[in-house]
Amino acid sequence: MTSYQHVVLASRPKGVVSVDNFRLETVAVPVLQEGQVLVRNHYLSLDPYMRMRMEDVKSYAAPQALNEVMIGGTVGEVVDSKHAKFAVGDVVVGMLGWSEMGWSDGALLKKVDTTHIPQSAYLGAVGMPGMTAWYGLTQIIQPKEGDTIAVSAASGAVGSAVGQLAKQRGCRVIGIAGGQEKCAYVVDELGFDACIDYKGGKLYADVKAAAPNGIDGLFENVGGVVMDAVLARMNPFGRIALCGLISGYDGEPMPIHNTRVILSMRLTMQGFIVSEHMDLWPQGLTELGTLVATGKLTYRETVADGLAAAPEAFLGLLRGKNFGKQLVKLI
Amino acid sequence: MTSYQHVVLASRPKGVVSVDNFRLETVAVPVLQEGQVLVRNHYLSLDPYMRMRMEDVKSYAAPQALNEVMIGGTVGEVVDSKHAKFAVGDVVVGMLGWSEMGWSDGALLKKVDTTHIPQSAYLGAVGMPGMTAWYGLTQIIQPKEGDTIAVSAASGAVGSAVGQLAKQRGCRVIGIAGGQEKCAYVVDELGFDACIDYKGGKLYADVKAAAPNGIDGLFENVGGVVMDAVLARMNPFGRIALCGLISGYDGEPMPIHNTRVILSMRLTMQGFIVSEHMDLWPQGLTELGTLVATGKLTYRETVADGLAAAPEAFLGLLRGKNFGKQLVKLI
Repeated sequence: MTSYQHVVLASRPKGVVSVDNFRLETVAVPVLQEGQVLVRNHYLSLDPYMRMRMEDVKSYAAPQALNEVMIGGTVGEVVDSKHAKFAVGDVVVGMLGWSEMGWSDGALLKKVDTTHIPQSAYLGAVGMPGMTAWYGLTQIIQPKEGDTIAVSAASGAVGSAVGQLAKQRGCRVIGIAGGQEKCAYVVDELGFDACIDYKGGKLYADVKAAAPNGIDGLFENVGGVVMDAVLARMNPFGRIALCGLISGYDGEPMPIHNTRVILSMRLTMQGFIVSEHMDLWPQGLTELGTLVATGKLTYRETVADGLAAAPEAFLGLLRGKNFGKQLVKLI
Repeated sequence: MTSYQHVVLASRPKGVVSVDNFRLETVAVPVLQEGQVLVRNHYLSLDPYMRMRMEDVKSYAAPQALNEVMIGGTVGEVVDSKHAKFAVGDVVVGMLGWSEMGWSDGALLKKVDTTHIPQSAYLGAVGMPGMTAWYGLTQIIQPKEGDTIAVSAASGAVGSAVGQLAKQRGCRVIGIAGGQEKCAYVVDELGFDACIDYKGGKLYADVKAAAPNGIDGLFENVGGVVMDAVLARMNPFGRIALCGLISGYDGEPMPIHNTRVILSMRLTMQGFIVSEHMDLWPQGLTELGTLVATGKLTYRETVADGLAAAPEAFLGLLRGKNFGKQLVKLI
């Protein structure tokens, strides 16, 4: 290969993201410098956080620069190395972006063992999404046995892990997802105690019925009406891990209406970004990796084929069209 | 005295509270039983939390019962005692309600020393409001020297203490209050660094100007647009002590619109009720009492004259007509 493709941010979205906000480009494979590693990416991870980076607003991270390769997590194989710690053939996870190839000085690159864990899982259950679930649940919600835990976007990469980890800790787990098919999967395959279809038209009543003893912990990925419905049922001293607000990423107003519950029930709500807690990743990934390797943590993947399909797949992710972890296969 | 007056809840408000929701009654002074104390109340404390208790909704406490004496903190003098720990002439604080007299088995009654601290201060800066300020600031916001702390209802009983305690901890303190007179008091007499008049018509711009380095901690008493304006300027890892939401106590919608900031700035918001943290009262009251006795903690009082004036004074409190701690003088 002398050239490869990548996707850059062509323009910032005004409201809803469109495929025109992205541009596919063909570029030359670079000549490696001393200390660098060249990687052929096998999978790209698509994640909701990317939507926030596309905006030019004050946030936890610098905005994605225009005309530069879209940020993104990747897993792939080292195809050339002038770095002492990486050899050709190593499977590595990194942040090489929406790109078929990438190079690195090794700083954000990590070798992974694919003996018992598939490559792609390192972008999902044993990667950033899994760690996000683990961190928010164990460090913010801190569930006790017998607690009722609710999680929105329950069939997604993060939500599905949250619920399974909470079940293993002896909790009653309520999922919220879009559509009957996802809800059936959440209960039947992931083992949640109940799952509410937020498109079912009676969100408040359904949450109340599914959580007869109230809700002690909420892992929130969605925001808006979904969040308000759970807030209304929170128990005293409930904890809310605010992980995502995907319902508002295109700029829709996304107020919390049940503000008073935060006071009257003495709730704690905490926003978090898992990449700021790298000290806990070894602990979390050990638990997640063991669970996946032993078949005790289930996940599903939606895989788009080829980098050119990435923008459309990303739009689908923002609309909830994916089922489980959204990946793009690059080889 | 063979009879005295008290105020009961006559009906629950539908929206805005009116004086018709209360009823003044004359009742006979009871004959004391063994182990009881009879108190002639000198001051009644009026506080925003009473508004929430008037509603029949699930909250942190049982609703105020209809046709029973309105809940309320009091300070007064023991006029008869069949209790070993209390003698006639003792000054005591208690929760004897909207009432000229009250009796107790001593459980919630506490003798206080008025040598250096006026009686009424035990209902304000050295009482529940002061402890509310102390708890939310020191336990939830946990300010560091150099932090910028914002507090709404800044001239009120709680807000005025929050700001002064934060100044003593080396913080920059921004108050938010209603009207120029209150703002002048907050800056000139309480020593806040700035105070914003939320009625001034440019809340967002004023908050931005007053907090050029952003805001690290928010002590929230008001909610609604005031809270949103501060949220917009919060720094990463900011802490929000959610103490009150007075702007919505009459049932007005009170959404948080800047929800996304909680996520993007990784904020922590915590609702609290100071009466659930009695273990810390001795520590807090020692600090507050010393500060008041030595003139280092300033406060202002608005005193309504006589129990019959209590309902109107309470309505005024909910509208921000009071200046500082709202009391009712009962003798």
